[in-house]
Amino acid sequence: MEKKMIITISREFGSGGRSIGREVAKQLGIPFYDKELVEKVALESGFAPTFVEEHGEHAPGKTRFSYAFSHHGAPGAMNGMSTADFLWSIQCNVILQLAEQGSGVIVGRNADYILKDHPNCLNVYIHANDEFRADRIVRLYGESEKSPQTRLAEKDKRRRVNYAHYTGQEWGAAQNYDLCLDSSRLGIEKCVEIILSLVK
Amino acid sequence: MEKKMIITISREFGSGGRSIGREVAKQLGIPFYDKELVEKVALESGFAPTFVEEHGEHAPGKTRFSYAFSHHGAPGAMNGMSTADFLWSIQCNVILQLAEQGSGVIVGRNADYILKDHPNCLNVYIHANDEFRADRIVRLYGESEKSPQTRLAEKDKRRRVNYAHYTGQEWGAAQNYDLCLDSSRLGIEKCVEIILSLVK
Repeated sequence: MEKKMIITISREFGSGGRSIGREVAKQLGIPFYDKELVEKVALESGFAPTFVEEHGEHAPGKTRFSYAFSHHGAPGAMNGMSTADFLWSIQCNVILQLAEQGSGVIVGRNADYILKDHPNCLNVYIHANDEFRADRIVRLYGESEKSPQTRLAEKDKRRRVNYAHYTGQEWGAAQNYDLCLDSSRLGIEKCVEIILSLVK
Repeated sequence: MEKKMIITISREFGSGGRSIGREVAKQLGIPFYDKELVEKVALESGFAPTFVEEHGEHAPGKTRFSYAFSHHGAPGAMNGMSTADFLWSIQCNVILQLAEQGSGVIVGRNADYILKDHPNCLNVYIHANDEFRADRIVRLYGESEKSPQTRLAEKDKRRRVNYAHYTGQEWGAAQNYDLCLDSSRLGIEKCVEIILSLVK
């Protein structure tokens, strides 16, 4: 890879998007921003990493409630914003800073939209059929009292609402991305291969 | 390519989807169904090829009007159907027959949906930004009294409405396709290359 390059991976829950992003970053020898991104946002916001992880991609309505009762943050800095809006503004800044620093792979958090004016940014969307995703979340995150189908539907809905609210665009619409891949049909490895072929 | 393989290419008007499909077919040495498909539908429906070409991807409302006044078809065979529904049913049959015969590339006409149960079918969606598409339609089809932007918007709308009506799915939603590519960002040649890498 000759020039500075940012790859954003947007993904349906359970599609393997995170694994694909991690492998692409590894093979290119560039940073993979996932936990690090959450930690940077946590540091700058004053919220706990687990709170950022949980709420950073939530529907804005959900986190407005938690604002009223929040004792994690720095209320002065929030300046009347809802928790969701406050987290969003910090996430934007952190993502723009990371992209400024050099190449990297960023998973989730609407980075495709935040970096839409970046000169060298490849925006990828990973999706998969429900069977593949249900199987994967049970394998990776274990069983829960909710059915895998309910967990998929809830998480998908949150990301869709969050994306629509902050970007004005439709989650999963092909035109928002340079490349959309069905990992359940193409396989995780092939997805990695295609992305690498575009940036190497 | 070892086994029988169908590649469907759905495309935004002016995105270069047809050129990509033609090149993929050429490089794989398999049939490219575009004009041939229209001619087969024309032959089976009794309509003129130009009529099939014009109306096969239209919004159903549009062609219902032409039914009342149509003298092209075989009214007995239409059995009370609108022209659009009649064309749709024949297109379905022709596409299923073509897929039965062996490998091939099929452009447009909701073939992704019609062949959704086909065991070896790769569904591709090609899109591009408006600037790329406007430039391309003027270069390929010449100027017209309408602005390129209007021509793009009208054709996109027709295909979207037709697709939604006959498939119950949303045109351009990534989850309907194995692979979605932005030809204006990746380039026509790279799109061909990616598709070939998936089927070779």
